[in-house]
Amino acid sequence: MIDATHDAGLRSWVDSANGHPDFPIQNLPLGIFSPSGGGPRAGVAIGSMILDLGAAQAAGLLLGDAARAAEAMSGGTLNAFFALGAGPRAALRVRLSALLAEGSAERARLEPCLHPAEGCTLHLPARIGDYTDFYVGIHHATNVGKVFRPDNPLLPNYKYVPIGYHGRASSVVPSGTVIRRPQGQRKRPEENAPSFGPCRNLDYELELGIWIGPGNALGDPVPVGEAARHVAGYCLLNDWSARDIQAWEYQPLGPFLGKSFGTTISPWVITPEALAPFRLAQPPRPEGDPPPLPYLLDEVDQREGAFDLELEVLLETPGLRERGLPPHRLGLSSTRHMYWTVAQMVAHHASNGCNLQSGDLLGSGTLSGPEDSALGSLLEITRGGKHPLLLASGEERRYLEDGDALVLRARARREGFASIGFGECRGSILPAPVAKVA
Amino acid sequence: MIDATHDAGLRSWVDSANGHPDFPIQNLPLGIFSPSGGGPRAGVAIGSMILDLGAAQAAGLLLGDAARAAEAMSGGTLNAFFALGAGPRAALRVRLSALLAEGSAERARLEPCLHPAEGCTLHLPARIGDYTDFYVGIHHATNVGKVFRPDNPLLPNYKYVPIGYHGRASSVVPSGTVIRRPQGQRKRPEENAPSFGPCRNLDYELELGIWIGPGNALGDPVPVGEAARHVAGYCLLNDWSARDIQAWEYQPLGPFLGKSFGTTISPWVITPEALAPFRLAQPPRPEGDPPPLPYLLDEVDQREGAFDLELEVLLETPGLRERGLPPHRLGLSSTRHMYWTVAQMVAHHASNGCNLQSGDLLGSGTLSGPEDSALGSLLEITRGGKHPLLLASGEERRYLEDGDALVLRARARREGFASIGFGECRGSILPAPVAKVA
Repeated sequence: MIDATHDAGLRSWVDSANGHPDFPIQNLPLGIFSPSGGGPRAGVAIGSMILDLGAAQAAGLLLGDAARAAEAMSGGTLNAFFALGAGPRAALRVRLSALLAEGSAERARLEPCLHPAEGCTLHLPARIGDYTDFYVGIHHATNVGKVFRPDNPLLPNYKYVPIGYHGRASSVVPSGTVIRRPQGQRKRPEENAPSFGPCRNLDYELELGIWIGPGNALGDPVPVGEAARHVAGYCLLNDWSARDIQAWEYQPLGPFLGKSFGTTISPWVITPEALAPFRLAQPPRPEGDPPPLPYLLDEVDQREGAFDLELEVLLETPGLRERGLPPHRLGLSSTRHMYWTVAQMVAHHASNGCNLQSGDLLGSGTLSGPEDSALGSLLEITRGGKHPLLLASGEERRYLEDGDALVLRARARREGFASIGFGECRGSILPAPVAKVA
Repeated sequence: MIDATHDAGLRSWVDSANGHPDFPIQNLPLGIFSPSGGGPRAGVAIGSMILDLGAAQAAGLLLGDAARAAEAMSGGTLNAFFALGAGPRAALRVRLSALLAEGSAERARLEPCLHPAEGCTLHLPARIGDYTDFYVGIHHATNVGKVFRPDNPLLPNYKYVPIGYHGRASSVVPSGTVIRRPQGQRKRPEENAPSFGPCRNLDYELELGIWIGPGNALGDPVPVGEAARHVAGYCLLNDWSARDIQAWEYQPLGPFLGKSFGTTISPWVITPEALAPFRLAQPPRPEGDPPPLPYLLDEVDQREGAFDLELEVLLETPGLRERGLPPHRLGLSSTRHMYWTVAQMVAHHASNGCNLQSGDLLGSGTLSGPEDSALGSLLEITRGGKHPLLLASGEERRYLEDGDALVLRARARREGFASIGFGECRGSILPAPVAKVA
């Protein structure tokens, strides 16, 4: 629902919010942060500041459902808040919008609750019970499939099944956490046997992350028409991938250690309410594609289940930094390239009775576009390392090197609305650990 | 280490423990239970009784490390206890053995802390952060591979990599929980397109479960020689499998909804200390098999990293029950058929820096033996449904039917030692839910 909180003319008395690329007053994303010297607590990003929600509540500024929402966050995670669903979340948004708007009578009482974001540490917003990674980027699936099956890149199930797999929850980390290059078994085609050592083909994957709100009981599927109610918000997700480890290990049970050494997410939860203006009808399926099976088909979802978010990937390298050169843009893509909607992913996930829980995290899978400038992984950009990338610093990249940093960004734009962003999803690569084993 | 707690002559003043098939005084497994009318708490199984550990501690019967162990269980899960490692766990065992032994001076103070197990509810012993399922049963991997590749059933990576994949943690349930037949997409070979409906090929998988004790930090591998210290105990695990859903969905990212509708475990944690007498040297690898890579090779693990546990699968059906017939034994197998040890599984899992956490659960994969009488799934027993099983009731089974119950049991035996068991791992099949979606 689009309401007054989305008004493009709305301005905040927090100056840095007005015109802020990510966090104007129309966004109001939620997260868990620690101010300098303090413990983890819930907050909302507004411009370059973070509002401490517990402090705002203690000051008596949140009432009714908005207070209930803030109370649910008092344990230092958003899990219980996610479980409350849309009502309290929307009530909190409306109240925060009023409190932070220019002319608010409460400015003096709110100002002590603000912390400069620069001095704060951002944490994971929720305790992640299970993390599931999907594969709904059809251009990525096609590009990867082409490597193995040039004439028939998509497997027969792709256009029927929102393909996904269970990921590793423990190694999901917030933006800024360093990523240690993994070791593992890898085997070059010309080698007879594998060897164990540092990953040689370290890659990223550009994904949208989805936070689960209210869950479902085990054995109780979620109809696709109700699936949107089970979503609490969105983030960016970098599914770091050790391509050589993955290639050797993944048959027959899928990716495992090639992925589980780390997954980075942006720490702010962008709410469904904030993204309401940026919903889209599902693009029509290409001619000849089968319609979704009935359990994945819903009229409202078809009409407004897709998203228009611009997704950007930037690479920082030691050479670019030394020469004072800007990051290299690896790709500019969009959530328009999702073959399945978030509601379809949720309904499919629960269709067998699997219980989703508040704070579960879904990844979309790599969201590449059809153009060379819109690819979401180095595997695709360098054609599996065969066509290295030449950077302005003179450096070449087949895959990520130690010291590189990778940054994902997302922006929602629509004529007549303030654009909002997700904040950054950043990780830098440390060398592999010195082997403790022979 | 084998000590006085393993003495075959040791008897308990809890009469039902003496000669008990699962829980004599030499076992002392830990779990979380609710007595009739009470809340969840930690306990130890002794014969047909459960000792309330918090009550024993409150009575002043546990001191030092044993008290520390009991305190770590006071939150209603064993996670914090698992994190303490072997020291407090072994201290608690020694103390409980003395307290429960015939002639104990504390019998009168302990008796009020006992509850008849019959009136208690058993819960999951820990909050499972992540659940990983391995594939170390080489006969199962060979049998399944034969279906697809008769001449070359094992993939080239099998003898190098302890193959595993991330499973679904939220749907792991304790023994006794009913399992609803899942719905999903399935496609018969002769069909052009899949349809959505109740699973037609519902199966079980006989597995050993492994509880993780102390964890490791992200980025910090666990050397195989230290891996045993990261194990807190063992259980039975039934990896329910919807073969038709799995067959259609699993390419290219592995099993997903074919598994995530439910995984049943036995609720008692059998400690490494209880199993000490039943350790074995790893059987020599078949001639021509490559040796494990160095990061998976440890002398102590080679010498005593394997287990000798008898594993049994029983099927109860409506027809057998009606006719008063005993359950049908589907298989009698052994943990001897693990191609990789638990230490190798743990070291491999953490070799890329993946962080294991206290309360994580590993499954071994299906442990079939080489004989027809030792198969761990119906997929193998009925050759994918081609050779139905005829039961004494006259019923036929290709796969599991609604109303069937499946029971796993495990028993450790060794000449000169009291045999111990795992208790049962039971689940019955309910019909698929009435579709809420078209």
